[in-house]
Amino acid sequence: MDYKTHRSIRSFLPKEVAPALLESIVATGARASNTGNMQTYSVVISRTQEERAALAPLHFNQPMVLQAPLLLTICADFNRFSSWCTLRGAKPGYLNLMGLLAGTTDAMLFAQNMAVAAEESGLGICYLGTTLYSMEAMCQQLKLPRGVVPIVAMVMGYPAEEPQLTERITPSALIHYGSYQQYTPQQLEAIYQPIEELPANIQYVKENSKPSLAHVFTEVRYRPALYAELSGQIAETLRKQGFEI
Amino acid sequence: MDYKTHRSIRSFLPKEVAPALLESIVATGARASNTGNMQTYSVVISRTQEERAALAPLHFNQPMVLQAPLLLTICADFNRFSSWCTLRGAKPGYLNLMGLLAGTTDAMLFAQNMAVAAEESGLGICYLGTTLYSMEAMCQQLKLPRGVVPIVAMVMGYPAEEPQLTERITPSALIHYGSYQQYTPQQLEAIYQPIEELPANIQYVKENSKPSLAHVFTEVRYRPALYAELSGQIAETLRKQGFEI
Repeated sequence: MDYKTHRSIRSFLPKEVAPALLESIVATGARASNTGNMQTYSVVISRTQEERAALAPLHFNQPMVLQAPLLLTICADFNRFSSWCTLRGAKPGYLNLMGLLAGTTDAMLFAQNMAVAAEESGLGICYLGTTLYSMEAMCQQLKLPRGVVPIVAMVMGYPAEEPQLTERITPSALIHYGSYQQYTPQQLEAIYQPIEELPANIQYVKENSKPSLAHVFTEVRYRPALYAELSGQIAETLRKQGFEI
Repeated sequence: MDYKTHRSIRSFLPKEVAPALLESIVATGARASNTGNMQTYSVVISRTQEERAALAPLHFNQPMVLQAPLLLTICADFNRFSSWCTLRGAKPGYLNLMGLLAGTTDAMLFAQNMAVAAEESGLGICYLGTTLYSMEAMCQQLKLPRGVVPIVAMVMGYPAEEPQLTERITPSALIHYGSYQQYTPQQLEAIYQPIEELPANIQYVKENSKPSLAHVFTEVRYRPALYAELSGQIAETLRKQGFEI
């Protein structure tokens, strides 16, 4: 498995990841580009069963959190860089929307380069988007100081499964040459019909008793009311962590 | 050059990137993980000299924008997904802080997987953080509709240089086992001194007539006043693009 054929792994062998391998994965992650070489990210690594058990409820008790030997929480981190600036008598000031976006983009480049390195080493990973759902509790559990917020997490370990490649919309639908071309209804049909017609998705719509796959998204999986609620919670957490948002 | 030894490339050979290669890079990018398989990202590709010339000022006329055969602007895109939902009679509602962060993280995973694929194919890339500096003008130039915002850009082409590997802080400084450990002044010294003592950085501090490298960051390169100003501009652009922030 490599970055071209990534599968999210949710079932792991009971085999530890050697500390030296883990550290080399972090080092490789840090080779990714970042803003001005400020490296405004950190990773909190939960290795013990106890540490992962404390975080499991924040990830809605997805079994892989306990089953995987490693849980990595990747954070946007302006604390380390700012602390160094202050130590030198310089005056940092990056806790705002621009800082949040710069720190988030850098954290994600770091995360994905780690994912690529892990998969090349025979490990499997699965990202946990639930990190954004439980930001406040995660800050407390991981003792994140001012200037640090969790952005994404991933479980990591040796795969005990080899899932099918997940479907994607046709890559040409992602590309706009020159400028953005608004999609016509006909184009949207052509893009999404192949996804909607997959037997697994037909079954999925049926199980949820919804009129279409789109309704499963908006009424079950990613309800607008949930997104609105989370937005308020995230803004509050960001402010608690020192960001003027 | 691969993802383990990434160098940002700012000088390119006058050689086109074959369209099929470019499309395979986008396809590989889309193999990266994303939130719920909603694929809330797009890429605007500027291939002609004219298209890149129009964007060059928005990237502060960095020469590589005109010199590279390709400029890719990676966007968080809730327009395509939401348009499909609406077409099916479902009611999307993701234009808020949670949507912005989910779209941004997905756009960055897509971007970095493209970067890895490009480098493995013998191409070089350089990210352009200036995208966040010129968000509003970029929305207009690229005709981005409601629900779409540019997050990062990258130039891409065949390298005409092989720069040295950029320094990074020691990887162990990025890792927190179990929970976040605040850095002591002694630890900060140990982390940043090797960076400060690099001849290039000593020279850099001297050229800027500043007391330390940290001052070059806070008073020249990434001034807090600039970050504050950009935060206001970004918030305004996000609202114009439909995000309730």
